[in-house]
Amino acid sequence: MTTFQRIVLAQRPRGEVLASNFRLETVEVPALADGQVLVRNHFLSLDPYMRGRMSDAKSYAAPQPLDETMIGGTVGQVVESKNPKFAVGEHVAGMFGWAEMGVSDGALLRKLDVSRIPLSAYLGPVGMTGMTAWYGLNQIMQPKAGETVAVSAASGAVGSVVGQLAKLRGCRVVGIAGGKEKCDYVVNELGFDACVDYKAGNLQADLAAAAPNGIDAIFENVGGEVFDAALARTNAFARVALCGMIAGYNGADVEIKNARVLLTNRLTLRGFIVTEHMEFWPQGLTELGMLVATGKLKYRETVAPDLAAAPEAFIGLLKGKNFGKQLVKLI
Amino acid sequence: MTTFQRIVLAQRPRGEVLASNFRLETVEVPALADGQVLVRNHFLSLDPYMRGRMSDAKSYAAPQPLDETMIGGTVGQVVESKNPKFAVGEHVAGMFGWAEMGVSDGALLRKLDVSRIPLSAYLGPVGMTGMTAWYGLNQIMQPKAGETVAVSAASGAVGSVVGQLAKLRGCRVVGIAGGKEKCDYVVNELGFDACVDYKAGNLQADLAAAAPNGIDAIFENVGGEVFDAALARTNAFARVALCGMIAGYNGADVEIKNARVLLTNRLTLRGFIVTEHMEFWPQGLTELGMLVATGKLKYRETVAPDLAAAPEAFIGLLKGKNFGKQLVKLI
Repeated sequence: MTTFQRIVLAQRPRGEVLASNFRLETVEVPALADGQVLVRNHFLSLDPYMRGRMSDAKSYAAPQPLDETMIGGTVGQVVESKNPKFAVGEHVAGMFGWAEMGVSDGALLRKLDVSRIPLSAYLGPVGMTGMTAWYGLNQIMQPKAGETVAVSAASGAVGSVVGQLAKLRGCRVVGIAGGKEKCDYVVNELGFDACVDYKAGNLQADLAAAAPNGIDAIFENVGGEVFDAALARTNAFARVALCGMIAGYNGADVEIKNARVLLTNRLTLRGFIVTEHMEFWPQGLTELGMLVATGKLKYRETVAPDLAAAPEAFIGLLKGKNFGKQLVKLI
Repeated sequence: MTTFQRIVLAQRPRGEVLASNFRLETVEVPALADGQVLVRNHFLSLDPYMRGRMSDAKSYAAPQPLDETMIGGTVGQVVESKNPKFAVGEHVAGMFGWAEMGVSDGALLRKLDVSRIPLSAYLGPVGMTGMTAWYGLNQIMQPKAGETVAVSAASGAVGSVVGQLAKLRGCRVVGIAGGKEKCDYVVNELGFDACVDYKAGNLQADLAAAAPNGIDAIFENVGGEVFDAALARTNAFARVALCGMIAGYNGADVEIKNARVLLTNRLTLRGFIVTEHMEFWPQGLTELGMLVATGKLKYRETVAPDLAAAPEAFIGLLKGKNFGKQLVKLI
């Protein structure tokens, strides 16, 4: 290969993301300098945070620059190395973005053991996705055995891990997801105690039935009416890990209508970005890796077939069309 | 005295509190049983939390029963005692409610030293009011020297203490209050660095000017657009002590329109009720008492002249008509 494909941000979305916001390009494979490695990416991770980067509104991270490779986590294999720490053939995770190849000095590459854990899992339950769940559950929600935990986007890559970790802690776990198929998966395959289909039209009543003792901790991925419904069922001193507000990713305001509950139930709410808490990653990834390797942590993937399919897959992710972790196959 | 006056809740308010929700009654002074004391109340504290109790909506506390004495903190003097721990003439704080007298077994009475601290201050900066400020600041906001602290209802009984305590910690303190007179008081007498008049119509811009380095911690008493404006100016990892939402005390919904900021700025928000944290009161009241006794903590009182004036004073409190701590003189 002397060239590879990448996708750049062509224009910032106004409201909904469109395929035309992206541009597929073919670029030359660069020559390596001393200390560098060339990685052939096998999978790209698509994540809701990317929507925020596409905007130039003030946020926790600098916006994705126009005409540059879209940001993204990847896993792949070293195909050329001028760095003594990396041998050709080794598997690595990196942040090479929406691209088939990438060059690195190795500083931010993580070597991966694929003997017991599939390569793609390092973008899901044993990567940032899993760590997001782990951090929110263990550092913010801290549920005790017997407490009730609610998880929105429960069939999603993060939510599915949150709920399974909470079950391992002995909690009653209630998922919220869109549609019967996702809810069935959450209960029957992931082992949640209940799942409420927010599309069924009885969110508040169904949540009350699913959480008869109220809710002690919330992992929030969605915002909007889903979050308000969960807030309305909280017990005193409930904790909220605020991970995402996908209801607002297309630029819509996200309101908390039920703000009074924050006071009357004396809630603690914390917004977080897991990449700001790297000190927990070694412990968390070790635990998550063990759980995946031993089959105790289940996950599902939706895999787009090639890089050209990434924009549509990403747009689908923002609309909840994926099932589990959304990946793009690059090889 | 063989009779005394009290005010009971006659009916629950629908929306705004009306004077007709209350009823003034004359009742007999009861005979004391062994172990009891009779207290003549000198001052009654009026506080926003009472509005919540008047409603029978689910809340952290049981609703105020109809036809019973309105709940409330009082300070007064023992006038008769069948309890060896209390002598006639001793000053005590209690929860005797909207009433000129009260009977207690002494268990929940706190003896007061009025040699260096005025009796009424034990309902304000050296009572629950001061502890509310102390707890929110020290246990939730935890601002460091040089950080910027925002306080809504800044001229109020709680807000004024929060700001002064934050100044003693070396913070830049920005108040938010309604009207020029209150703002002048906050800056010129209480020593805040700045005060934004939310009635002036430029809340967002004025707050940006008053907090040029952003806001690191918020003490929130109001909710609604005042809170949204402060949220919009937060820095990453800002802390919010959510003490009150007086914007919603008349039954209106209180929304957080700016909920996205909770995530993008990774805020920590905690709603609290200071009476659930009694373990901090001995330390806090000692510190607050020292500050009042040495003139380092200033406070202002608005005093209604007698019990019959309490309903109108309370209605005024909910509308921000008082200035500083709202008391009712009972003797």
